[in-house]
Amino acid sequence: MIATAAEARALFRAGTVAATSGWVPGRTQVNLIAVPADWAYDMLLYAQRNPKPCPVLDVTDPGGTGTILAHDTDLRTDFPAYRVWRDGELAEERTDVVDLWGDDLVAFLVGCSFTFEADLAAAGIPLRHNEQGRNVPMYVTTRQCRPAGRLHGPLVVSMRPIPADRVAEATALSARMPGVHGAPVHTGDPEALGIDDLDRPDFGDPVRAEPGDVPVFWACGVTPQAALMASRPPFAITHAPGHMLITDVPDADYRVG
Amino acid sequence: MIATAAEARALFRAGTVAATSGWVPGRTQVNLIAVPADWAYDMLLYAQRNPKPCPVLDVTDPGGTGTILAHDTDLRTDFPAYRVWRDGELAEERTDVVDLWGDDLVAFLVGCSFTFEADLAAAGIPLRHNEQGRNVPMYVTTRQCRPAGRLHGPLVVSMRPIPADRVAEATALSARMPGVHGAPVHTGDPEALGIDDLDRPDFGDPVRAEPGDVPVFWACGVTPQAALMASRPPFAITHAPGHMLITDVPDADYRVG
Repeated sequence: MIATAAEARALFRAGTVAATSGWVPGRTQVNLIAVPADWAYDMLLYAQRNPKPCPVLDVTDPGGTGTILAHDTDLRTDFPAYRVWRDGELAEERTDVVDLWGDDLVAFLVGCSFTFEADLAAAGIPLRHNEQGRNVPMYVTTRQCRPAGRLHGPLVVSMRPIPADRVAEATALSARMPGVHGAPVHTGDPEALGIDDLDRPDFGDPVRAEPGDVPVFWACGVTPQAALMASRPPFAITHAPGHMLITDVPDADYRVG
Repeated sequence: MIATAAEARALFRAGTVAATSGWVPGRTQVNLIAVPADWAYDMLLYAQRNPKPCPVLDVTDPGGTGTILAHDTDLRTDFPAYRVWRDGELAEERTDVVDLWGDDLVAFLVGCSFTFEADLAAAGIPLRHNEQGRNVPMYVTTRQCRPAGRLHGPLVVSMRPIPADRVAEATALSARMPGVHGAPVHTGDPEALGIDDLDRPDFGDPVRAEPGDVPVFWACGVTPQAALMASRPPFAITHAPGHMLITDVPDADYRVG
């Protein structure tokens, strides 16, 4: 039984691989995107111009391996799984990236919708992917982000089937957390986002909707990965979708008002 | 009588100089800080690391003179007054900066506490600086911001005397607007922030407190100017404190939840 964020990080550092939705309830989880310093301004500006999918919670100095978000963390080992990108192509997936973390690499830690899931669960709103033991499904949409420098790409969304009579409440609860994607970007019709088949997500697992559920879409921290694929920087490291760093920061810190 | 943001901008473009608190209620006002492209990453990172004083609402491309926040605006003319900085020293104050706006200048537009003043006023909370026809008082504190690259400097705060029985409400109303400084950083004792004399603000005008008022301090968008003074980049342009750009964006857009 994993009780604390530090324990979870130690487990992942030792090589365990797992999707982290539902892990260590109450502690904020974050996405990773690390790029060469030469690309850091474009990435930070891309995030500023697209705050819903890219809420940046911390940025390292070049070569740095720690973060203010988690005590004694090594960003090169403490995510359950990493993806390595070369020229915009997925080159490999790994459980650590110690040997690839150069002195000029700048890491961006980006908020994750898992943060508001705790509030949804506390309100009794069912989370189907957790009930079904799956990673949350994520989709590349036809909606383009606002470009920044050399970076451009589509919006990626996560989807949760929500009972129709709880959609308003799920919206209000997530809206209170703008630092971790905030309110849904879209509710209902997947086709309006260019999603043809909910059963074939681009990342994560398909999730079964229960009768009366409506698909609700939130901006997703995998959006920077889609920008990498579209914009092809020479090198980048990200987390594997759904496999996040569990920080020490209470989710409540991102609740506004 | 100025009714719209566009009318106000036209007036300032034509040379009028005025502190803008209370102008065009309901439209968001913004601070300006423009630096050479070589300093843009440090500034954007400084803002990311200090989001309460530096909530960035838009960033131009190098040399750009417009913004998504206001239709048909020229950032070189549409603020009522500008400050020009050389090596961290205030070099001059002007009503336009057309001839100084080089091709490599990157402009940051930063949220302003005037945005939540509309909500305070609507709730019947008195704004003493407006009652007294003065610019809001601003103070350099002894609290340091988190540094970023070559940029470091103290937190600057704005102060409003608020009746003691309305402080809680003023706090809650501003907390709903994290994009424009959010909740107060400090309430009550000025000495804890290193402010010796409320009657001698570092920027803006002194404001008379009424009996029963408590000084309430919000993070202030002049903070980047204090970073310029401390960190001495070769060149920068800012607005003159209290003399903001009035955008077309409704204040309500920055209200969360």
